[in-house]
Amino acid sequence: MIATKGYAVHNKADKLAPWNFERRELGPKDVLIDILFSGVCHSDIHQVRSEWGPAIYPMVPGHEIVGRIAEIGSEVANFKIGDLAGIGCMVDSCKECPTCKGGQEQFCERGETVMTYNGLERDKKTPTYGGYATKIVCTEEFVVHVSEKLPIEGVAPLLCAGITTYSPLKRWGIGKGHKVAVLGLGGLGHMAVKFAVSFGAEVTVLSTSPSKKEDAKKLGAHKFVVTKDAEEVKNYKGYFDFIIDTVSAPHDYDMYLNMLNINGVQICVGIPPEPIKLTGFLLLGGNKTITGSSIGGIDETQEMLDYCAEHNIVSDVEVININYVNEAYERVLNSDVKYRFVIDVSTI
Amino acid sequence: MIATKGYAVHNKADKLAPWNFERRELGPKDVLIDILFSGVCHSDIHQVRSEWGPAIYPMVPGHEIVGRIAEIGSEVANFKIGDLAGIGCMVDSCKECPTCKGGQEQFCERGETVMTYNGLERDKKTPTYGGYATKIVCTEEFVVHVSEKLPIEGVAPLLCAGITTYSPLKRWGIGKGHKVAVLGLGGLGHMAVKFAVSFGAEVTVLSTSPSKKEDAKKLGAHKFVVTKDAEEVKNYKGYFDFIIDTVSAPHDYDMYLNMLNINGVQICVGIPPEPIKLTGFLLLGGNKTITGSSIGGIDETQEMLDYCAEHNIVSDVEVININYVNEAYERVLNSDVKYRFVIDVSTI
Repeated sequence: MIATKGYAVHNKADKLAPWNFERRELGPKDVLIDILFSGVCHSDIHQVRSEWGPAIYPMVPGHEIVGRIAEIGSEVANFKIGDLAGIGCMVDSCKECPTCKGGQEQFCERGETVMTYNGLERDKKTPTYGGYATKIVCTEEFVVHVSEKLPIEGVAPLLCAGITTYSPLKRWGIGKGHKVAVLGLGGLGHMAVKFAVSFGAEVTVLSTSPSKKEDAKKLGAHKFVVTKDAEEVKNYKGYFDFIIDTVSAPHDYDMYLNMLNINGVQICVGIPPEPIKLTGFLLLGGNKTITGSSIGGIDETQEMLDYCAEHNIVSDVEVININYVNEAYERVLNSDVKYRFVIDVSTI
Repeated sequence: MIATKGYAVHNKADKLAPWNFERRELGPKDVLIDILFSGVCHSDIHQVRSEWGPAIYPMVPGHEIVGRIAEIGSEVANFKIGDLAGIGCMVDSCKECPTCKGGQEQFCERGETVMTYNGLERDKKTPTYGGYATKIVCTEEFVVHVSEKLPIEGVAPLLCAGITTYSPLKRWGIGKGHKVAVLGLGGLGHMAVKFAVSFGAEVTVLSTSPSKKEDAKKLGAHKFVVTKDAEEVKNYKGYFDFIIDTVSAPHDYDMYLNMLNINGVQICVGIPPEPIKLTGFLLLGGNKTITGSSIGGIDETQEMLDYCAEHNIVSDVEVININYVNEAYERVLNSDVKYRFVIDVSTI
C-alpha cells in the first residue's frame, strides 16, 4: 500500500483536517500520480456536509486533480513517468456497456461509474478518496494528459468546471452566429463564458450582481444583463439562442424561457434541489427546450484539455495553501472567489 | 363578398348552430375553396368555450380543412380550379421575418401569424372564421396541395394533428433504431404512432387505459404500457429515446423522465394549463431534455401531406353530419372517439 497524506472530514459537521491513509498498490493498468494542484468545487462542500444524500466518511474531497505520473503499472500504454496528468469526477466504470463505449462513462448503464471521492470502487465496498491529497492511484483509462504549455494550477478546474461547460456547448453545436447567455458568473459560469467566446458566439452574462459587469467583460463577454432589472430583462425577450444556466439556487425558469428565441435551448448545468416549475406553454410557443448536462466523458475531457492548450484557456484561480481550505469553503458559499480556489498540494 | 354558410357560437356557453356570414372577395393571390371536410380538434372546444383567453365571437371553429379550389385570384400561381387543397391552423403571416422565411410561420417574429379562426387578420381588426363552413378564402401561400390518392376525410386531421406530430419527429431525427413512446392515444397520439412506426422506430403506447392495448397494436404500435401499473412502468426505466407527450391534462413529468434513456428527449405537443413541475436532477442525470413543439410551418405541412400520400397514411376518423357536432364535442371530452371526428361539410 502507498502511504498518502490528505485532508479529510469524519462527519458532516467536521472541518477539513490532516488525515493519513493508503492508496492501493498499482495494478497492471494503474498509474500513480503525485498530485500538484487540486481544485475546490462547490460540490465538495455539499458532499462534505452530506447534503447530497448520505456521505461516506472519512471523506477526502477533490475531483479537479493535476499532477505528475510517478509510477506506472506493467501494462500501462499511454503514460510514462514524469508526464503531467489529470483526473476529474470519476476514476472508473464498466467500460463495456454501450453508454461507456459511447464515451459517456458518467452514465454507465451498469451503475458502475466510480466517483473520484465519496464513492465506492466497482467492488461496491472500497471507498474512494479524492484530490485533497498528495497521491492518487487510478486506472490509466480514467486519466487524461495535461499539456506542459499551460499554468497547471489553472488547468485543475478544467477537470470539472471546464468539461461541465465545454460538453454541452459542443453537443448543441454552439458557436458563430449564436447568441448565448451565461446565467451566473461563478466557477462554471466563467468557464462557460470563455468557451462560448472562444467558439465564436456572442456572449451575454446574466447576473443578479451589477458589480460583476466589469469582470464579465474582462472574461470576454460582449454584454451584461442585471436580471433584477425587469426593464432590462424585457429588452432581451426572445433574444438568446442558448442559455447556459449554472445556477443551483432556486430561480425563475419562466423568466429565462421568455428570454429564449424561437427554438432556443436552456442548458442546465446547475440545478436547485427544489423541483423546477415552469409554464408549459412557454415550451410550446416557440419550440423551446430545457435540458440538463452532467460533466462529460473521458475522451471528451481529453479533447477539451487539448482544445484549451491550443487556445490558451485556463480557469481563473486563487491558489491557496491547504490550511486555508476551511476558510475558502466559507468564501465559496459567499460567492467570494474569482473563480476557483485551487489547493497547492505541496502544502499538505 | 361571398355568401357562406357555417356553424358558429355567439358566446362561451353557446351551442354550435347555423350562421350565415360572408368571406372576402378574392384578392390577386387568394383562392376560394369549397370545403368538403373539416376536422374537429380538441382545441376547438377550448376556444369555443373561451378557455384559452378571451375568444372572438361569433366564432366559426375548424382548422383541419380539406376542399376543392373553386376560384383563383389573378396572380395565383400554384393552384387551379378543381385542385384538392387544405388549410391548417393559420392563414397568413408577415412572410418576411427570418422565422417566417425559415419556414416557421407559426412563430412569426412580427406577431402577424393569423390563426384560421378566433384570430384577426394582419389588419388586427378583421376576425377570421374557420372550417365549419361551406367556403373559405385564403392567400395561396397558406394553402397546401392534397393528393387525390387518399380518402380525403382522413386527410383533414393531418392539417393539425398530423403536422403537430410529424414536425417534431422529423426535427429530432426520429426513426430506425429509436425506441419511441407515445403518451396518450387520442387525435395527436394515434398520428404520432403512425408516423413513428412509418419512420422505422420501435413504438410503445403509454396509456392509463388497458382497454386501448388492442387499438394501439392495430395502429402499428409494438408495445403497450399501462402507466397506472407501477411495476410495468419500472420495467421501462431508462428505456425510451423519445417520449411524444400528447397529454394536456396534468401528469407526472418525473415518472416519464425516469423512463427516458441517457440523452433521452420528452417532446410535449400537449401541455396542461397548470405549471409543469419536475426534478431538475432528472435532467442532469442522463443529459435529458424536455421540449415543446407547436404545429409546423407551411412547407413542412406540404412535405407531411406528400409523405402521407406516398405512404398511405391518414387519420382514423368518424365522419359526422354537422347536426351531430355538439354531441361530438361531448364525446371528445370523454375521449370517446377513434380518433377524430370529421364533419361532412355537405351537411351544413
